[in-house]
Amino acid sequence: MRIAVLGTGSVGRALARRLAEVDNEVTVGTRDVQATMARETPDAFGNPPFAAWLEATGDVTVAALAEAAATAEVVINATSGAASIDALTAAGKDNLAGKVVVDVANPLDASAGMPPSLSVSNTDSLAERIQRRFPSARVVKTLNTMNAAVMVDPPLVGDGDHTVFLSGDDAGAKAVVSDLLTSLGWSDIVDLGDITTARGPEMLLPLWLRLFSALGTPRIQFKVVR
Amino acid sequence: MRIAVLGTGSVGRALARRLAEVDNEVTVGTRDVQATMARETPDAFGNPPFAAWLEATGDVTVAALAEAAATAEVVINATSGAASIDALTAAGKDNLAGKVVVDVANPLDASAGMPPSLSVSNTDSLAERIQRRFPSARVVKTLNTMNAAVMVDPPLVGDGDHTVFLSGDDAGAKAVVSDLLTSLGWSDIVDLGDITTARGPEMLLPLWLRLFSALGTPRIQFKVVR
Repeated sequence: MRIAVLGTGSVGRALARRLAEVDNEVTVGTRDVQATMARETPDAFGNPPFAAWLEATGDVTVAALAEAAATAEVVINATSGAASIDALTAAGKDNLAGKVVVDVANPLDASAGMPPSLSVSNTDSLAERIQRRFPSARVVKTLNTMNAAVMVDPPLVGDGDHTVFLSGDDAGAKAVVSDLLTSLGWSDIVDLGDITTARGPEMLLPLWLRLFSALGTPRIQFKVVR
Repeated sequence: MRIAVLGTGSVGRALARRLAEVDNEVTVGTRDVQATMARETPDAFGNPPFAAWLEATGDVTVAALAEAAATAEVVINATSGAASIDALTAAGKDNLAGKVVVDVANPLDASAGMPPSLSVSNTDSLAERIQRRFPSARVVKTLNTMNAAVMVDPPLVGDGDHTVFLSGDDAGAKAVVSDLLTSLGWSDIVDLGDITTARGPEMLLPLWLRLFSALGTPRIQFKVVR
């Protein structure tokens, strides 16, 4: 499958590398390819410069946002929540039309200090904003409730015995994403319902962030026991 | 231990009965004892009239909110989120001073339809509002992330292998509540930190409500896998 991963941070990189390993054709989309490739210092989170990561990774290419989205069958929004609408707008409404758009971002707002709160929640969500802004995209929210390393390697935590959520209005798009999740090693995939159900997983972030502090590790996952 | 359980709904009843069974001296607090005891029809959720429940339960007494709180060592807020501040005010600031006040309520707001949203979230929480309103009470948030039956009988779901959270500013109060939770059968008790961490468990409710719809059962619990 041809997949565009929008975003060059740790989430985008983890997804791009792993999706390429399981035989997808992956392009990472970035606003300015030249600037991204020219960076020579680690980012704020200590990730190596993108060009070094790309060279070490091999089977992944890089392109401008619109170019990456244009040829993709599935577009993954792995940008920061605050940048997501702008990045998808740059990717191009027409390039997203009819496509499966997987939103893994969180609308975190650290403007009032740490831990961040959410810039949208309770009666709306980032996923709903994306769906409203790109009505012909087939938006699916998933994977936003965990650390990037766990997204692509569920057994890192508790032998993989935990849950990932799906929210979206398009059953066919959710089936595509469910297959992708299965290829990444996920087995407990819970379809919550339409795109408004994305409020629930997005509102898990404040608890996740507090657990990160309390337990001292980002290798935390939620299992829905039933 | 002398415990006042404020609230006569299914949460208050479940906690009162079970806490009495494990050898606490339990009084249920209600705004108007005479009116509560006079009710002859089931409530909106199909619970039997309170007087019938009380007679069947045996070892629990009923009193006005202030009277119940006055003699208690631990006061549990099991009223609805919308009624909590008023109920605690009626219980009396002086009757709560220095006491462990366990808040199990959720600030649900169904005014815009179902499923409810939250009337406070993200940058504040019901637990924090209670702590600010009653600064000399030792408020601990817990047990708000599950169905009443599961609160008092964790093995009802997944053999009890799931998590309950604690939030509060007073370490001694959290130790008291942790012991009470252990007596109810809880083993995985996670202390999230100060009272502001209550935002996390309160913001779990939207996900819980969607899971209730998606899975068709209220016997759902979250396990923090790590």
